[in-house]
Amino acid sequence: MASILKMNLSGKRKQLYEGSSKILFEGPDSDTIIAHFKDEVTVASTNETIAVAGKGALNNRISEYLMLKLDSLGIATHFIKNINMREQLVRRLDVIPLQVVIRNVAAGDICTRFGMEEGVVLPKPIIEFFLKSTNLKDPLVTEDHIEAFGWAGAFEMEEIRNIAIRANDFLTGLFLGCGIRLIDFKLEFGRSFGHDFEQVIIADEITPDTCRLWDMKTNVKMDQEGVKLEGFPPDKGYLEIARRLGILPETSNVEELYS
Amino acid sequence: MASILKMNLSGKRKQLYEGSSKILFEGPDSDTIIAHFKDEVTVASTNETIAVAGKGALNNRISEYLMLKLDSLGIATHFIKNINMREQLVRRLDVIPLQVVIRNVAAGDICTRFGMEEGVVLPKPIIEFFLKSTNLKDPLVTEDHIEAFGWAGAFEMEEIRNIAIRANDFLTGLFLGCGIRLIDFKLEFGRSFGHDFEQVIIADEITPDTCRLWDMKTNVKMDQEGVKLEGFPPDKGYLEIARRLGILPETSNVEELYS
Repeated sequence: MASILKMNLSGKRKQLYEGSSKILFEGPDSDTIIAHFKDEVTVASTNETIAVAGKGALNNRISEYLMLKLDSLGIATHFIKNINMREQLVRRLDVIPLQVVIRNVAAGDICTRFGMEEGVVLPKPIIEFFLKSTNLKDPLVTEDHIEAFGWAGAFEMEEIRNIAIRANDFLTGLFLGCGIRLIDFKLEFGRSFGHDFEQVIIADEITPDTCRLWDMKTNVKMDQEGVKLEGFPPDKGYLEIARRLGILPETSNVEELYS
Repeated sequence: MASILKMNLSGKRKQLYEGSSKILFEGPDSDTIIAHFKDEVTVASTNETIAVAGKGALNNRISEYLMLKLDSLGIATHFIKNINMREQLVRRLDVIPLQVVIRNVAAGDICTRFGMEEGVVLPKPIIEFFLKSTNLKDPLVTEDHIEAFGWAGAFEMEEIRNIAIRANDFLTGLFLGCGIRLIDFKLEFGRSFGHDFEQVIIADEITPDTCRLWDMKTNVKMDQEGVKLEGFPPDKGYLEIARRLGILPETSNVEELYS
């Protein structure tokens, strides 16, 4: 861990990727990556980037917490350990180019597609797959497309579905327990070749950037949309989520995250 | 049949529906419908309607031929019999609100969605489902959507997939045998309650309006796109398809269809 911090301070780490919410650096070993959580939110409609103080540190903590809980249920994730307030060490994977969205309640683009009102409880959870392609605007794809174009195999898709359903069961319950409705969330997956057999495991992050989380009583959006659409400072949503999950003491505020 | 013709002449038949290529009338019995094939093509991009002499009669003949062949393979369809040059009697069904598209070669909107070039042979046939909804612009849907929103049941979807694959096998072979590539085609399905058990059967039509059919040697579009995009008169495409299928004598032309 000392060597990682040294690389960080010397600024010599090789950057692999920069997205709207994270930067990925090469890890200390060839099979690891360092994920750096940024204090930024990109508003899709305007492509405008908003600085949101404390978001990176909160997401790093929330994702750590959720990934470890999933792992303890026997659902493998790429998470290894947090290495500082806004960075975590994760396993390097062969990325499956899909965004897997699990929806319990209608919100966002499914409302547009099917002319539904936001907030309608779906008859059953719906799993949607989107191709990760900025050029093609992340189109909705079916399992026929995924198999025919080789984005994932039939056996992998069965595993992805099973993991998505299990993760939804657990996360729905966890958030329900602290007064939050899990409307929908996004998972990403990768292949790990570190074992005797190939394994599909959860990658990326699970945070209020990738989940729609509404307060149970008020339906206030505690997630990224709350920041994007309603201009909430993060301690209105992200910090409250972390507090309710018991990750932060009741009294903590954004400044304390850095103390 | 006399009573049908009489109704026709007296103009007292009750119209149930008018689409771009067909008008549906109430049939002589409560469980039948008369499908009237129009001589029109609607260009989707401009919503402009083009009169195409002879198309209705050709489609009536082609759909009759293909439906009867499928039926003889044990694949049930709604077709009962042709009643005149441009009309056929079909079974009245509980319509399943899906367009089922079976694709062998990339063409049309799949190219836009995935940035593919037209004419690329797909690694395997792909079945796509679109919700029949003009308001929502017939969106692509997945089997999760179909099941969750109750558009069809899981058992029905399994039957629809099986029938779609079998129809593709047969039609690909049939057209191949007469020098035509079946690029893709659309099927519609309905539920028939006329038996001891509910049955999913092929509805609508199978014609050059609902199939992409390219000449094997020249890749000329013999189908509706040939008329829409390349301004072919129907005897360049539809009539040639009917001739190659052996439905019309080699020497026939559009005028003869009405003689």
